[in-house]
Amino acid sequence: MNDKDRYLARLKRIEGQVRGIHRMVDEEQYCIDILTQVSAVNSALRNVALGLLDDHMRHCVRDAAQSGGEAADAKFQEVTDAIARFARS
Amino acid sequence: MNDKDRYLARLKRIEGQVRGIHRMVDEEQYCIDILTQVSAVNSALRNVALGLLDDHMRHCVRDAAQSGGEAADAKFQEVTDAIARFARS
Amino acid sequence: MNDKDRYLARLKRIEGQVRGIHRMVDEEQYCIDILTQVSAVNSALRNVALGLLDDHMRHCVRDAAQSGGEAADAKFQEVTDAIARFARS
Amino acid sequence: MNDKDRYLARLKRIEGQVRGIHRMVDEEQYCIDILTQVSAVNSALRNVALGLLDDHMRHCVRDAAQSGGEAADAKFQEVTDAIARFARS
Repeated sequence: MNDKDRYLARLKRIEGQVRGIHRMVDEEQYCIDILTQVSAVNSALRNVALGLLDDHMRHCVRDAAQSGGEAADAKFQEVTDAIARFARS
Repeated sequence: MNDKDRYLARLKRIEGQVRGIHRMVDEEQYCIDILTQVSAVNSALRNVALGLLDDHMRHCVRDAAQSGGEAADAKFQEVTDAIARFARS
Repeated sequence: MNDKDRYLARLKRIEGQVRGIHRMVDEEQYCIDILTQVSAVNSALRNVALGLLDDHMRHCVRDAAQSGGEAADAKFQEVTDAIARFARS
Repeated sequence: MNDKDRYLARLKRIEGQVRGIHRMVDEEQYCIDILTQVSAVNSALRNVALGLLDDHMRHCVRDAAQSGGEAADAKFQEVTDAIARFARS
């Protein structure tokens, strides 16, 4: 199973977890249990994001850094903007 | 549209967003665009969680506080544990 | 050592950690080591915030819930607003 | 005022804010007001961290990427580990 398949599998699982939260709300299950599930989805999504970020830096950012110049500056700006958006989300 | 329907509609939308991220990964779209979507889902989920927490406090916690005693202590413990889990997720 | 003294001791320690980060930046220490210290302060502050929130709910919110009426509504609104601000910080 | 002086000034201000929180706890000020200050310090620290991370990537990571090889791999690993620690803090 390669990296891409692993991400796809994790996202399928997250989609199922969100569907599970929908069902819990629909069945009016206990609030605290629903919140626990929301926290679990948040953690799972954050781990996906950290993995994607790692891949992005090892490939795109690295290639840009090696070619140098303004393209590299733009890539570094882009990735720190993405980290800032993520850290505030 | 009552509160429950509003939560269900938001969760349906979040489920669709997660499916969209799955498709973006599958089509190998640009990493930064995928990260932006993950941040959007995180924000949407956090808002659902804050809404659920608010409802929970106005109803369950309030009722427990009014009846008093050990049941109230347990409710307060439970809600602060849920907030701690959420804040660390 | 009561709760208040414990908070004061933790805040003194956090103040010292921030001063340590200032010194690290001044001495141009390695970026990653500085970031590790910033993450440690963030965690410590979050734990102080969660503790204060817990105390607040067990005392102020509980008293307000028991007296009931509009004052209780206002307290619940206030605490969920504070949690929302904290979760986004 | 260069970047380093700017960081030092921001950290001095954060140190003052933490001292302010200590005073608020000591004077038993209202919990919600204390929490608001803690959220402000968290935001200020996060912005310092994002700035340091940005500098680190534009200098250390970039240089390592240009020299290439295992040193570059190690730098990328180090920075994504730091982001993960920060995102969980």
